[in-house]
Amino acid sequence: MTGTTGKKVLALSGGVGGAKLALGLSKVLAPEQLTIVANTGDDFEHLGLSICPDLDSVMYALSGVNDTVRGWGVSGESWQCLESLGRLGAETWFQLGDRDLATHLQRSFLLGQGLTLSEVTTALCSALGIAANLLPMSDQPVRTEVITDAGTLPFQTYFVREQCQPRVSSFHFSGVESAPPSPGFLAMLQDPALALVVICPSNPFVSVDPILSLPGVRAALEQSAAAVVAVSPIVGGRALKGPAAKMLQELGKDSSATAVAAHYAGLADAFVLDQSDATLIPGIRALGMDVLCLQTVMHSLEDKVGLAQALLDALLPNTVNAGLVV
Amino acid sequence: MTGTTGKKVLALSGGVGGAKLALGLSKVLAPEQLTIVANTGDDFEHLGLSICPDLDSVMYALSGVNDTVRGWGVSGESWQCLESLGRLGAETWFQLGDRDLATHLQRSFLLGQGLTLSEVTTALCSALGIAANLLPMSDQPVRTEVITDAGTLPFQTYFVREQCQPRVSSFHFSGVESAPPSPGFLAMLQDPALALVVICPSNPFVSVDPILSLPGVRAALEQSAAAVVAVSPIVGGRALKGPAAKMLQELGKDSSATAVAAHYAGLADAFVLDQSDATLIPGIRALGMDVLCLQTVMHSLEDKVGLAQALLDALLPNTVNAGLVV
Repeated sequence: MTGTTGKKVLALSGGVGGAKLALGLSKVLAPEQLTIVANTGDDFEHLGLSICPDLDSVMYALSGVNDTVRGWGVSGESWQCLESLGRLGAETWFQLGDRDLATHLQRSFLLGQGLTLSEVTTALCSALGIAANLLPMSDQPVRTEVITDAGTLPFQTYFVREQCQPRVSSFHFSGVESAPPSPGFLAMLQDPALALVVICPSNPFVSVDPILSLPGVRAALEQSAAAVVAVSPIVGGRALKGPAAKMLQELGKDSSATAVAAHYAGLADAFVLDQSDATLIPGIRALGMDVLCLQTVMHSLEDKVGLAQALLDALLPNTVNAGLVV
Repeated sequence: MTGTTGKKVLALSGGVGGAKLALGLSKVLAPEQLTIVANTGDDFEHLGLSICPDLDSVMYALSGVNDTVRGWGVSGESWQCLESLGRLGAETWFQLGDRDLATHLQRSFLLGQGLTLSEVTTALCSALGIAANLLPMSDQPVRTEVITDAGTLPFQTYFVREQCQPRVSSFHFSGVESAPPSPGFLAMLQDPALALVVICPSNPFVSVDPILSLPGVRAALEQSAAAVVAVSPIVGGRALKGPAAKMLQELGKDSSATAVAAHYAGLADAFVLDQSDATLIPGIRALGMDVLCLQTVMHSLEDKVGLAQALLDALLPNTVNAGLVV
């Protein structure tokens, strides 16, 4: 360990995209250095189950059970229950895999026993052998609603059932005003050892904004001595995954990394841009941010570890315990 | 149709054994003639799900999705969710198959929406294409507890987790005093067209007694003009399935069809004995019952239909619409 390994890193993440960098960070930081806070605005109740897609995506990535070919869910998945649900006349638009279902069942059961979502998440992560500290953004429900030309849609209805087809005009995070950050998130925001906050390459509107909208979070980040760095989920004008680029256009913005940087202006001290977008550097610097131009497209584990390490090398030198690197 | 097809038959059933005769009856009676009432004393809540093993066994048998090789559950079953539940530290002693799980999920969801168990059962049966009328014995929860030398055990704990090993001294049907028969069951008990009540070859103590213990049921059956016939679940001194013989012994009785007949004395007008137990006829007649000696061991569909037809031929002649026989 180097002399600055006491410094702590807080990663804010949505689902699959953010989980890639979270996994990279988990490979180069000691477990006690890293806290990952996942968006829960995507959460919903389905067939009586409490489903937390972003928490699950991060959890599956960190434990290595994620399906890297399909890009979401659990590897070796099967769909027998879903097929039978269909025969019973149940709704089947949300793809519930047999393995994935176990997570929803156990979570719903433990929540029903009175555990908080933070406690349930810790229990699930512990069972899966995850050493890093993964937390929901809040233990109180926040439900993202997408205001579209087809009406106001619950997030999963927009995202999965409607396949992001309706045209978006704005977002509403129902319940956010009465949803304090989870205790572990709050403790990290107030921890003097917090040196770096990483906004993972997740959708700024529906993955990161719900986290930033929790009471006190944006102010705490703005006032924190920790550096805040945001990693662009847009590369070459396209979202690496999901509807971020489509949303930017429908909201009247450029579908560019610059538009994402502008979204975080006043909050992020630095912005991580993909090397292929180097021409955007001057425009983003003009927003008052430092710019890091890195290899941000993460396919392999080496890509994920490489981005995490490059990011920490630049913003938190001497923090990385290289011995942990895979 | 013959002139007496307006007559109705009520079958009282536990799980797998009773379901075989229920299936046979469903093949020789018109749907509007047959009501099957299943025990719900075996029901329990597990991982937040409402599980009704006897209703499910009958439902799976009637719809033909039951696994006839394993003898319980759904054919083509897989266990991916259960394996994942185990990895998450959940209890796995109750065998939740991926296909079976769909039934528990949809039932629990619909109950949570405010439907009664009767309404849920009708919805599930309808989705599975079941024409006969299958009902829970009550819409209110009744929970069978087995008093044993290892303490008082919830039924599924005794039956599945402890594999019926503890020595039984008595039974308690928790909640039965405030559990009226389900509306359809009550209507059938009061229906002037009810001509025959069949107590299926199910465990008398934990499958049939919960049904008979519901407020008013035994009295209604005793006073009914309908004939009551019980089919022995004990053949050659052994239970065809489950712990009935072991229970008879532990309760200080003979493990014989005669002991089962004695259990129903005063209630059953007739008793169906397997042909191999013909030596028991005089003893059972002495209990004041007519005795039918039939082929009661049901392996094939022909066995099930054959027993149903023989039973109806004897007790309700001219009722069977032979055109329905498979």
